Amino acid sequence: MDELIETVDIVRISGDETKNQQDVIIKETPLTLFVNNHELVTLLCLPQYQANLGVGFLFSEGFLSDKDDIESVNVNRNRGIVWVQLKNQLRINENFQKSRAVTSGCARGLTFYQLFEKWEGEFISTGMTISHNYIVDAVADLNQRSLLFRQTGGTHSALLYQQNEFLLEREDIGRHNAIDKIIGECILKRISGEDKIMMSSGRISSEILLKAARFKIPILVSRGAPTSASLKLAEEIGITLVGFARGKKMNVYCNSWRIQ
Amino acid sequence: MDELIETVDIVRISGDETKNQQDVIIKETPLTLFVNNHELVTLLCLPQYQANLGVGFLFSEGFLSDKDDIESVNVNRNRGIVWVQLKNQLRINENFQKSRAVTSGCARGLTFYQLFEKWEGEFISTGMTISHNYIVDAVADLNQRSLLFRQTGGTHSALLYQQNEFLLEREDIGRHNAIDKIIGECILKRISGEDKIMMSSGRISSEILLKAARFKIPILVSRGAPTSASLKLAEEIGITLVGFARGKKMNVYCNSWRIQ
Repeated sequence: MDELIETVDIVRISGDETKNQQDVIIKETPLTLFVNNHELVTLLCLPQYQANLGVGFLFSEGFLSDKDDIESVNVNRNRGIVWVQLKNQLRINENFQKSRAVTSGCARGLTFYQLFEKWEGEFISTGMTISHNYIVDAVADLNQRSLLFRQTGGTHSALLYQQNEFLLEREDIGRHNAIDKIIGECILKRISGEDKIMMSSGRISSEILLKAARFKIPILVSRGAPTSASLKLAEEIGITLVGFARGKKMNVYCNSWRIQ
Repeated sequence: MDELIETVDIVRISGDETKNQQDVIIKETPLTLFVNNHELVTLLCLPQYQANLGVGFLFSEGFLSDKDDIESVNVNRNRGIVWVQLKNQLRINENFQKSRAVTSGCARGLTFYQLFEKWEGEFISTGMTISHNYIVDAVADLNQRSLLFRQTGGTHSALLYQQNEFLLEREDIGRHNAIDKIIGECILKRISGEDKIMMSSGRISSEILLKAARFKIPILVSRGAPTSASLKLAEEIGITLVGFARGKKMNVYCNSWRIQ
Protein backbone atom coordinates (compact mmCIF):
# COMPACT_ATOMS: atom_id res chain seq x y z
CA MET A 1 0.00 0.00 0.00
CA ASP A 2 3.03 2.26 0.37
CA GLU A 3 2.75 3.72 -3.07
CA LEU A 4 -0.91 4.59 -2.46
CA ILE A 5 -0.65 6.61 0.72
CA GLU A 6 1.75 9.11 2.23
CA THR A 7 2.47 9.80 5.88
CA VAL A 8 2.68 13.51 6.64
CA ASP A 9 3.19 15.74 9.66
CA ILE A 10 0.12 17.73 10.60
CA VAL A 11 -1.18 19.95 13.36
CA ARG A 12 -4.35 18.44 14.77
CA ILE A 13 -6.66 20.89 16.52
CA SER A 14 -9.52 19.65 18.65
CA GLY A 15 -11.36 22.31 20.63
CA ASP A 16 -8.57 24.20 22.35
CA GLU A 17 -6.11 21.33 22.19
CA THR A 18 -3.37 21.46 19.56
CA LYS A 19 -0.84 18.75 18.86
CA ASN A 20 1.69 17.82 16.24
CA GLN A 21 1.13 14.36 14.92
CA GLN A 22 1.22 12.23 11.82
CA ASP A 23 -1.57 11.61 9.38
CA VAL A 24 -2.03 9.48 6.31
CA ILE A 25 -3.17 11.05 3.03
CA ILE A 26 -3.99 9.55 -0.35
CA LYS A 27 -1.59 9.73 -3.32
CA GLU A 28 -2.64 11.72 -6.34
CA THR A 29 -0.42 11.32 -9.39
CA PRO A 30 -0.72 12.03 -13.11
CA LEU A 31 -1.28 9.21 -15.59
CA THR A 32 -0.67 10.07 -19.23
CA LEU A 33 -2.49 7.98 -21.79
CA PHE A 34 -0.94 7.48 -25.23
CA VAL A 35 -3.13 5.86 -27.88
CA ASN A 36 -1.47 4.74 -31.13
CA ASN A 37 1.47 6.93 -30.11
CA HIS A 38 -0.76 9.99 -29.79
CA GLU A 39 -0.77 11.70 -26.38
CA LEU A 40 -4.49 11.71 -25.64
CA VAL A 41 -5.04 12.73 -22.03
CA THR A 42 -3.48 13.09 -18.59
CA LEU A 43 -5.64 11.83 -15.76
CA LEU A 44 -5.04 12.61 -12.11
CA CYS A 45 -5.54 9.45 -10.14
CA LEU A 46 -4.47 7.00 -7.52
CA PRO A 47 -1.42 5.17 -8.98
CA GLN A 48 -3.01 1.73 -9.14
CA TYR A 49 -4.60 -0.37 -11.89
CA GLN A 50 -3.35 2.09 -14.47
CA ALA A 51 -3.84 -0.18 -17.48
CA ASN A 52 -7.43 -0.79 -16.45
CA LEU A 53 -8.02 2.92 -15.96
CA GLY A 54 -6.61 3.68 -19.40
CA VAL A 55 -8.72 1.03 -21.11
CA GLY A 56 -11.84 1.94 -19.13
CA PHE A 57 -11.40 5.61 -20.00
CA LEU A 58 -11.07 4.74 -23.70
CA PHE A 59 -14.20 2.60 -23.52
CA SER A 60 -16.18 5.31 -21.72
CA GLU A 61 -15.04 7.85 -24.30
CA GLY A 62 -16.02 5.65 -27.22
CA PHE A 63 -12.51 4.90 -28.56
CA LEU A 64 -12.94 1.15 -28.21
CA SER A 65 -15.84 -1.29 -27.87
CA ASP A 66 -14.22 -4.47 -26.65
CA LYS A 67 -10.95 -6.32 -26.22
CA ASP A 68 -10.80 -7.15 -29.91
CA ASP A 69 -10.15 -3.49 -30.64
CA ILE A 70 -6.93 -3.60 -28.59
CA GLU A 71 -3.57 -4.65 -30.02
CA SER A 72 -1.57 -4.11 -26.83
CA VAL A 73 -1.49 -2.28 -23.49
CA ASN A 74 1.78 -1.30 -21.85
CA VAL A 75 2.34 0.50 -18.56
CA ASN A 76 5.27 2.33 -17.03
CA ARG A 77 4.13 2.59 -13.44
CA ASN A 78 6.96 4.81 -12.27
CA ARG A 79 6.64 7.35 -15.04
CA GLY A 80 2.84 7.18 -14.93
CA ILE A 81 2.29 6.31 -18.58
CA VAL A 82 -0.06 3.89 -20.32
CA TRP A 83 0.38 3.10 -24.01
CA VAL A 84 -2.61 1.56 -25.75
CA GLN A 85 -2.23 0.35 -29.30
CA LEU A 86 -5.54 -0.04 -31.09
CA LYS A 87 -5.98 -2.33 -34.09
CA ASN A 88 -7.68 0.48 -35.97
CA GLN A 89 -6.67 4.05 -36.51
CA LEU A 90 -7.36 6.46 -33.66
CA ARG A 91 -10.22 8.75 -34.57
CA ILE A 92 -10.52 11.89 -32.49
CA ASN A 93 -13.65 13.50 -33.73
CA GLU A 94 -14.73 17.03 -33.21
CA ASN A 95 -17.19 16.04 -30.49
CA PHE A 96 -14.45 14.50 -28.40
CA GLN A 97 -12.31 17.57 -28.88
CA LYS A 98 -15.17 19.67 -27.61
CA SER A 99 -16.39 17.30 -24.99
CA ARG A 100 -12.88 17.12 -23.58
CA ALA A 101 -13.36 20.65 -22.44
CA VAL A 102 -16.05 19.91 -19.95
CA THR A 103 -14.48 19.28 -16.64
CA SER A 104 -15.39 21.85 -14.10
CA GLY A 105 -18.39 20.00 -12.77
CA CYS A 106 -16.49 16.74 -12.76
CA ALA A 107 -18.34 16.17 -15.97
CA ARG A 108 -17.64 16.03 -19.63
CA GLY A 109 -20.39 17.68 -21.52
CA LEU A 110 -20.85 17.76 -25.20
CA THR A 111 -21.41 14.07 -25.67
CA PHE A 112 -23.84 14.42 -22.86
CA TYR A 113 -25.33 17.61 -24.12
CA GLN A 114 -26.42 15.73 -27.23
CA LEU A 115 -28.02 13.21 -24.92
CA PHE A 116 -30.39 15.84 -23.72
CA GLU A 117 -31.73 15.39 -27.23
CA LYS A 118 -31.53 11.64 -27.75
CA TRP A 119 -29.73 8.55 -26.43
CA GLU A 120 -28.28 6.75 -29.39
CA GLY A 121 -27.04 3.67 -27.58
CA GLU A 122 -29.09 0.59 -26.82
CA PHE A 123 -32.05 0.54 -24.46
CA ILE A 124 -31.28 -1.64 -21.42
CA SER A 125 -34.12 -4.15 -21.35
CA THR A 126 -32.73 -7.03 -19.28
CA GLY A 127 -35.39 -8.61 -17.06
CA MET A 128 -32.91 -9.11 -14.22
CA THR A 129 -34.25 -8.39 -10.73
CA ILE A 130 -32.68 -8.39 -7.24
CA SER A 131 -34.04 -8.17 -3.73
CA HIS A 132 -33.68 -4.93 -1.82
CA ASN A 133 -31.78 -6.85 0.86
CA TYR A 134 -29.13 -7.52 -1.73
CA ILE A 135 -28.49 -3.78 -1.83
CA VAL A 136 -28.54 -3.49 1.96
CA ASP A 137 -25.74 -6.07 2.04
CA ALA A 138 -23.85 -4.32 -0.75
CA VAL A 139 -23.90 -1.06 1.20
CA ALA A 140 -22.37 -2.78 4.23
CA ASP A 141 -19.88 -4.37 1.86
CA LEU A 142 -18.94 -1.00 0.38
CA ASN A 143 -18.06 0.38 3.79
CA GLN A 144 -16.14 -2.77 4.66
CA ARG A 145 -14.12 -2.99 1.46
CA SER A 146 -13.17 0.68 1.10
CA LEU A 147 -9.85 0.24 2.88
CA LEU A 148 -8.14 3.31 1.51
CA PHE A 149 -11.11 5.46 2.38
CA ARG A 150 -11.02 4.19 5.92
CA GLN A 151 -7.34 5.11 6.14
CA THR A 152 -7.43 8.48 4.39
CA GLY A 153 -11.00 9.70 3.89
CA GLY A 154 -9.78 10.78 0.46
CA THR A 155 -11.17 8.24 -2.00
CA HIS A 156 -14.33 7.16 -3.73
CA SER A 157 -15.18 3.50 -4.31
CA ALA A 158 -16.92 1.57 -7.06
CA LEU A 159 -18.00 -2.05 -6.76
CA LEU A 160 -19.28 -4.58 -9.25
CA TYR A 161 -21.60 -7.48 -8.39
CA GLN A 162 -23.13 -10.31 -10.31
CA GLN A 163 -26.23 -11.88 -8.81
CA ASN A 164 -25.01 -13.54 -5.59
CA GLU A 165 -21.39 -12.74 -6.27
CA PHE A 166 -19.01 -9.91 -5.49
CA LEU A 167 -16.67 -9.33 -8.41
CA LEU A 168 -14.54 -6.19 -8.06
CA GLU A 169 -13.87 -3.19 -5.84
CA ARG A 170 -11.76 -0.21 -6.89
CA GLU A 171 -10.92 3.03 -5.14
CA ASP A 172 -9.59 6.25 -6.61
CA ILE A 173 -9.35 9.94 -5.78
CA GLY A 174 -12.13 10.46 -8.37
CA ARG A 175 -15.44 8.63 -8.50
CA HIS A 176 -15.16 8.59 -12.31
CA ASN A 177 -11.79 6.87 -12.24
CA ALA A 178 -12.96 4.19 -9.82
CA ILE A 179 -15.72 3.22 -12.26
CA ASP A 180 -13.41 3.39 -15.29
CA LYS A 181 -10.96 1.07 -13.52
CA ILE A 182 -13.70 -1.51 -13.09
CA ILE A 183 -14.94 -1.17 -16.66
CA GLY A 184 -11.40 -1.38 -18.04
CA GLU A 185 -10.68 -4.55 -16.11
CA CYS A 186 -13.91 -6.08 -17.38
CA ILE A 187 -13.11 -5.15 -20.97
CA LEU A 188 -9.68 -6.78 -20.70
CA LYS A 189 -11.16 -9.93 -19.13
CA ARG A 190 -14.14 -9.97 -21.52
CA ILE A 191 -16.60 -9.62 -18.64
CA SER A 192 -19.90 -8.13 -19.79
CA GLY A 193 -21.79 -5.50 -17.81
CA GLU A 194 -25.21 -6.70 -18.91
CA ASP A 195 -26.02 -8.82 -15.85
CA LYS A 196 -24.20 -6.76 -13.23
CA ILE A 197 -24.94 -4.34 -10.42
CA MET A 198 -22.65 -1.30 -10.14
CA MET A 199 -22.30 0.50 -6.85
CA SER A 200 -20.66 3.89 -6.30
CA SER A 201 -19.85 5.78 -3.14
CA GLY A 202 -20.32 9.09 -4.95
CA ARG A 203 -23.07 11.22 -6.35
CA ILE A 204 -24.63 10.13 -9.66
CA SER A 205 -24.22 12.91 -12.18
CA SER A 206 -24.98 12.48 -15.85
CA GLU A 207 -21.43 11.43 -16.59
CA ILE A 208 -21.46 8.58 -14.09
CA LEU A 209 -24.80 7.45 -15.48
CA LEU A 210 -23.41 7.45 -19.00
CA LYS A 211 -20.43 5.31 -18.04
CA ALA A 212 -22.80 2.72 -16.61
CA ALA A 213 -25.06 3.03 -19.67
CA ARG A 214 -22.26 2.43 -22.16
CA PHE A 215 -21.22 -0.62 -20.18
CA LYS A 216 -24.89 -1.75 -20.21
CA ILE A 217 -25.23 -1.94 -16.43
CA PRO A 218 -28.93 -2.49 -15.61
CA ILE A 219 -28.77 -1.51 -11.90
CA LEU A 220 -26.76 1.46 -10.62
CA VAL A 221 -26.65 2.09 -6.86
CA SER A 222 -25.14 5.02 -4.98
CA ARG A 223 -24.72 6.05 -1.39
CA GLY A 224 -25.19 9.59 -2.68
CA ALA A 225 -27.74 11.65 -4.60
CA PRO A 226 -28.65 11.55 -8.27
CA THR A 227 -29.06 14.71 -10.35
CA SER A 228 -32.03 15.59 -12.56
CA ALA A 229 -29.98 14.83 -15.69
CA SER A 230 -28.85 11.41 -14.48
CA LEU A 231 -32.42 10.48 -13.60
CA LYS A 232 -33.70 11.61 -16.99
CA LEU A 233 -31.05 9.53 -18.73
CA ALA A 234 -31.63 6.49 -16.52
CA GLU A 235 -35.34 6.57 -17.34
CA GLU A 236 -34.66 6.95 -21.04
CA ILE A 237 -32.00 4.26 -21.19
CA GLY A 238 -33.80 1.74 -18.96
CA ILE A 239 -31.41 1.73 -16.00
CA THR A 240 -32.66 1.13 -12.45
CA LEU A 241 -31.27 4.04 -10.44
CA VAL A 242 -30.95 3.72 -6.66
CA GLY A 243 -29.67 6.60 -4.52
CA PHE A 244 -29.07 7.31 -0.84
CA ALA A 245 -28.48 3.60 -0.19
CA ARG A 246 -27.45 3.77 3.46
CA GLY A 247 -27.99 1.16 6.12
CA LYS A 248 -31.35 -0.44 5.40
CA LYS A 249 -32.71 2.54 3.47
CA MET A 250 -32.64 3.47 -0.18
CA ASN A 251 -34.50 5.56 -2.75
CA VAL A 252 -35.34 3.92 -6.06
CA TYR A 253 -35.63 6.71 -8.62
CA CYS A 254 -36.73 4.82 -11.71
CA ASN A 255 -37.28 1.37 -13.20
CA SER A 256 -38.03 0.20 -9.68
CA TRP A 257 -39.46 -3.14 -10.89
CA ARG A 258 -35.91 -4.57 -10.83
CA ILE A 259 -35.76 -4.14 -7.03
CA GLN A 260 -38.05 -6.62 -5.29
CA MET B 1 -35.65 27.84 -6.10
CA ASP B 2 -37.94 26.09 -8.59
CA GLU B 3 -35.42 26.11 -11.38
CA LEU B 4 -32.78 24.56 -9.10
CA ILE B 5 -34.62 21.47 -7.88
CA GLU B 6 -37.05 18.96 -9.30
CA THR B 7 -39.73 16.96 -7.48
CA VAL B 8 -39.82 13.34 -8.59
CA ASP B 9 -41.73 10.18 -7.72
CA ILE B 10 -39.61 7.56 -6.03
CA VAL B 11 -39.94 4.24 -4.25
CA ARG B 12 -38.51 4.59 -0.75
CA ILE B 13 -37.41 1.35 0.85
CA SER B 14 -36.64 1.19 4.55
CA GLY B 15 -36.05 -2.29 5.93
CA ASP B 16 -38.98 -4.30 4.69
CA GLU B 17 -41.21 -1.29 4.23
CA THR B 18 -41.75 0.06 0.73
CA LYS B 19 -43.69 3.17 -0.19
CA ASN B 20 -44.24 5.43 -3.15
CA GLN B 21 -43.48 9.01 -2.31
CA GLN B 22 -41.97 12.19 -3.63
CA ASP B 23 -38.40 13.34 -3.38
CA VAL B 24 -36.50 16.44 -4.36
CA ILE B 25 -33.41 16.19 -6.55
CA ILE B 26 -30.94 18.77 -7.79
CA LYS B 27 -31.00 20.16 -11.33
CA GLU B 28 -28.06 19.43 -13.60
CA THR B 29 -28.02 21.33 -16.88
CA PRO B 30 -25.43 22.15 -19.54
CA LEU B 31 -23.91 25.62 -19.77
CA THR B 32 -22.07 26.40 -23.00
CA LEU B 33 -19.39 29.06 -22.82
CA PHE B 34 -18.60 31.13 -25.92
CA VAL B 35 -15.52 33.34 -25.76
CA ASN B 36 -15.03 35.89 -28.53
CA ASN B 37 -17.63 33.92 -30.50
CA HIS B 38 -15.61 30.73 -30.17
CA GLU B 39 -17.43 27.79 -28.50
CA LEU B 40 -14.97 26.95 -25.75
CA VAL B 41 -16.56 24.50 -23.35
CA THR B 42 -19.80 23.01 -22.07
CA LEU B 43 -20.00 22.71 -18.30
CA LEU B 44 -22.56 20.60 -16.48
CA CYS B 45 -23.82 22.58 -13.56
CA LEU B 46 -26.59 23.91 -11.40
CA PRO B 47 -28.36 26.59 -13.51
CA GLN B 48 -27.54 29.55 -11.28
CA TYR B 49 -24.93 32.30 -11.36
CA GLN B 50 -24.00 31.32 -14.89
CA ALA B 51 -22.13 34.51 -15.75
CA ASN B 52 -20.01 34.11 -12.62
CA LEU B 53 -19.30 30.48 -13.43
CA GLY B 54 -18.21 31.38 -16.94
CA VAL B 55 -15.93 34.18 -15.78
CA GLY B 56 -14.55 32.08 -12.90
CA PHE B 57 -13.82 29.20 -15.25
CA LEU B 58 -11.99 31.52 -17.64
CA PHE B 59 -9.94 32.94 -14.76
CA SER B 60 -9.09 29.48 -13.42
CA GLU B 61 -8.05 28.39 -16.90
CA GLY B 62 -5.85 31.43 -17.42
CA PHE B 63 -7.89 33.14 -20.17
CA LEU B 64 -8.30 36.32 -18.17
CA SER B 65 -6.60 37.98 -15.20
CA ASP B 66 -9.07 40.59 -14.04
CA LYS B 67 -12.15 42.55 -14.98
CA ASP B 68 -10.16 44.81 -17.28
CA ASP B 69 -9.71 41.89 -19.64
CA ILE B 70 -13.48 41.62 -20.13
CA GLU B 71 -15.39 43.63 -22.73
CA SER B 72 -18.83 42.14 -21.96
CA VAL B 73 -20.63 39.17 -20.44
CA ASN B 74 -24.06 38.09 -21.69
CA VAL B 75 -26.20 35.21 -20.49
CA ASN B 76 -29.17 33.38 -21.93
CA ARG B 77 -30.40 31.51 -18.88
CA ASN B 78 -33.01 29.46 -20.68
CA ARG B 79 -30.72 28.23 -23.42
CA GLY B 80 -27.81 27.78 -20.99
CA ILE B 81 -25.33 29.96 -22.82
CA VAL B 82 -22.78 32.50 -21.62
CA TRP B 83 -21.01 34.77 -24.09
CA VAL B 84 -17.84 36.45 -22.87
CA GLN B 85 -16.16 39.03 -25.06
CA LEU B 86 -12.54 39.63 -24.14
CA LYS B 87 -10.72 42.85 -25.00
CA ASN B 88 -7.86 40.82 -26.39
CA GLN B 89 -7.79 37.96 -28.83
CA LEU B 90 -8.63 34.54 -27.42
CA ARG B 91 -5.50 32.43 -27.25
CA ILE B 92 -6.07 28.70 -26.88
CA ASN B 93 -2.63 27.32 -26.46
CA GLU B 94 -1.56 23.75 -26.88
CA ASN B 95 -1.44 23.20 -23.12
CA PHE B 96 -5.08 24.12 -22.71
CA GLN B 97 -6.00 21.86 -25.59
CA LYS B 98 -4.21 19.04 -23.84
CA SER B 99 -5.23 19.94 -20.34
CA ARG B 100 -8.84 20.03 -21.45
CA ALA B 101 -8.60 16.31 -21.82
CA VAL B 102 -8.13 15.60 -18.16
CA THR B 103 -11.46 15.05 -16.58
CA SER B 104 -11.93 11.56 -15.36
CA GLY B 105 -10.64 12.24 -11.89
CA CYS B 106 -12.61 15.46 -11.68
CA ALA B 107 -9.30 17.02 -12.53
CA ARG B 108 -7.62 18.72 -15.39
CA GLY B 109 -4.08 17.58 -15.62
CA LEU B 110 -1.50 18.90 -17.96
CA THR B 111 -1.28 22.34 -16.48
CA PHE B 112 -1.05 20.59 -13.20
CA TYR B 113 1.35 17.98 -14.46
CA GLN B 114 3.78 20.77 -15.19
CA LEU B 115 3.30 21.89 -11.62
CA PHE B 116 4.81 18.69 -10.42
CA GLU B 117 7.91 20.33 -11.85
CA LYS B 118 7.50 23.95 -10.84
CA TRP B 119 4.84 26.49 -9.79
CA GLU B 120 5.24 29.51 -11.99
CA GLY B 121 2.74 31.75 -10.25
CA GLU B 122 3.42 33.92 -7.25
CA PHE B 123 4.30 32.59 -3.80
CA ILE B 124 1.56 33.45 -1.31
CA SER B 125 3.37 35.26 1.46
CA THR B 126 0.63 37.24 3.23
CA GLY B 127 1.13 37.40 6.98
CA MET B 128 -2.62 37.06 7.65
CA THR B 129 -3.55 34.80 10.56
CA ILE B 130 -6.88 33.63 12.00
CA SER B 131 -7.92 31.81 15.14
CA HIS B 132 -8.89 28.17 14.94
CA ASN B 133 -12.26 29.10 16.42
CA TYR B 134 -12.87 31.12 13.31
CA ILE B 135 -12.76 27.88 11.34
CA VAL B 136 -14.98 26.08 13.86
CA ASP B 137 -17.59 28.79 13.27
CA ALA B 138 -17.14 28.60 9.51
CA VAL B 139 -17.81 24.87 9.56
CA ALA B 140 -21.08 25.41 11.42
CA ASP B 141 -21.83 28.16 8.93
CA LEU B 142 -21.18 25.85 5.97
CA ASN B 143 -23.74 23.37 7.24
CA GLN B 144 -26.21 26.14 7.96
CA ARG B 145 -25.90 27.90 4.64
CA SER B 146 -25.90 24.88 2.33
CA LEU B 147 -29.65 25.05 1.73
CA LEU B 148 -29.71 23.06 -1.49
CA PHE B 149 -27.58 20.33 0.03
CA ARG B 150 -29.97 20.07 2.93
CA GLN B 151 -32.85 19.67 0.49
CA THR B 152 -31.26 17.33 -2.03
CA GLY B 153 -27.97 15.92 -0.71
CA GLY B 154 -26.71 16.49 -4.24
CA THR B 155 -24.51 19.59 -4.07
CA HIS B 156 -21.14 20.82 -2.92
CA SER B 157 -20.65 24.22 -1.34
CA ALA B 158 -17.91 26.82 -1.39
CA LEU B 159 -17.76 29.83 0.93
CA LEU B 160 -15.62 32.92 1.03
CA TYR B 161 -14.75 34.87 4.16
CA GLN B 162 -12.80 37.97 4.91
CA GLN B 163 -11.50 38.35 8.45
CA ASN B 164 -14.65 38.72 10.60
CA GLU B 165 -16.95 38.82 7.62
CA PHE B 166 -18.87 36.27 5.58
CA LEU B 167 -18.87 37.26 1.91
CA LEU B 168 -20.30 34.58 -0.39
CA GLU B 169 -21.72 31.09 -0.46
CA ARG B 170 -22.30 29.11 -3.66
CA GLU B 171 -23.54 25.59 -4.27
CA ASP B 172 -23.25 23.47 -7.39
CA ILE B 173 -23.39 19.84 -8.45
CA GLY B 174 -19.58 20.02 -8.76
CA ARG B 175 -17.18 21.25 -6.11
CA HIS B 176 -15.10 22.86 -8.90
CA ASN B 177 -18.04 24.88 -10.18
CA ALA B 178 -18.97 26.15 -6.73
CA ILE B 179 -15.47 27.61 -6.35
CA ASP B 180 -15.42 29.01 -9.90
CA LYS B 181 -18.75 30.75 -9.24
CA ILE B 182 -17.23 32.52 -6.23
CA ILE B 183 -14.06 33.46 -8.08
CA GLY B 184 -16.04 34.72 -11.08
CA GLU B 185 -18.22 36.92 -8.91
CA CYS B 186 -15.14 38.35 -7.21
CA ILE B 187 -13.47 39.07 -10.55
CA LEU B 188 -16.55 40.92 -11.78
CA LYS B 189 -16.77 42.91 -8.52
CA ARG B 190 -13.01 43.49 -8.35
CA ILE B 191 -12.77 41.65 -5.02
CA SER B 192 -9.27 40.29 -4.43
CA GLY B 193 -8.62 36.83 -2.99
CA GLU B 194 -5.45 37.90 -1.18
CA ASP B 195 -6.96 38.46 2.27
CA LYS B 196 -9.69 35.80 2.12
CA ILE B 197 -10.45 32.37 3.52
CA MET B 198 -11.98 29.84 1.11
CA MET B 199 -13.97 26.93 2.42
CA SER B 200 -15.09 23.90 0.45
CA SER B 201 -17.37 21.02 1.38
CA GLY B 202 -15.43 18.70 -0.91
CA ARG B 203 -12.10 16.93 -1.08
CA ILE B 204 -9.07 19.03 -1.96
CA SER B 205 -7.47 17.59 -5.07
CA SER B 206 -4.71 19.36 -6.97
CA GLU B 207 -7.20 21.11 -9.19
CA ILE B 208 -9.10 22.68 -6.31
CA LEU B 209 -5.81 23.78 -4.78
CA LEU B 210 -4.76 25.39 -8.05
CA LYS B 211 -7.99 27.36 -8.33
CA ALA B 212 -7.36 28.80 -4.87
CA ALA B 213 -3.69 29.43 -5.73
CA ARG B 214 -4.48 31.36 -8.90
CA PHE B 215 -6.92 33.49 -6.92
CA LYS B 216 -4.19 33.99 -4.27
CA ILE B 217 -6.26 32.59 -1.40
CA PRO B 218 -3.93 32.21 1.63
CA ILE B 219 -6.14 29.85 3.68
CA LEU B 220 -8.07 26.94 2.14
CA VAL B 221 -10.32 24.87 4.41
CA SER B 222 -12.22 21.69 3.61
CA ARG B 223 -14.57 19.37 5.41
CA GLY B 224 -12.92 16.61 3.38
CA ALA B 225 -9.46 15.17 2.77
CA PRO B 226 -6.54 16.62 0.84
CA THR B 227 -4.51 14.54 -1.60
CA SER B 228 -0.71 14.21 -1.70
CA ALA B 229 -0.55 16.44 -4.77
CA SER B 230 -2.66 19.21 -3.24
CA LEU B 231 -0.52 19.18 -0.12
CA LYS B 232 2.70 19.35 -2.13
CA LEU B 233 1.36 22.31 -4.09
CA ALA B 234 0.04 24.09 -0.98
CA GLU B 235 3.47 23.81 0.66
CA GLU B 236 5.23 25.06 -2.45
CA ILE B 237 2.82 27.93 -3.08
CA GLY B 238 2.54 29.04 0.55
CA ILE B 239 -1.12 28.21 1.15
CA THR B 240 -2.38 27.13 4.58
CA LEU B 241 -4.26 23.89 3.95
CA VAL B 242 -6.84 22.71 6.49
CA GLY B 243 -8.71 19.42 6.04
CA PHE B 244 -11.31 17.37 7.91
CA ALA B 245 -12.70 20.54 9.48
CA ARG B 246 -15.70 19.07 11.29
CA GLY B 247 -17.29 20.27 14.51
CA LYS B 248 -14.42 21.52 16.69
CA LYS B 249 -11.76 19.43 14.99
CA MET B 250 -9.47 20.07 12.05
CA ASN B 251 -6.16 18.96 10.58
CA VAL B 252 -3.74 21.65 9.47
CA TYR B 253 -1.57 20.13 6.76
CA CYS B 254 0.90 22.92 6.06
CA ASN B 255 1.71 26.56 6.76
CA SER B 256 0.02 26.08 10.10
CA TRP B 257 1.38 29.38 11.47
CA ARG B 258 -1.63 31.15 9.96
CA ILE B 259 -3.99 29.26 12.31
CA GLN B 260 -3.62 30.49 15.88
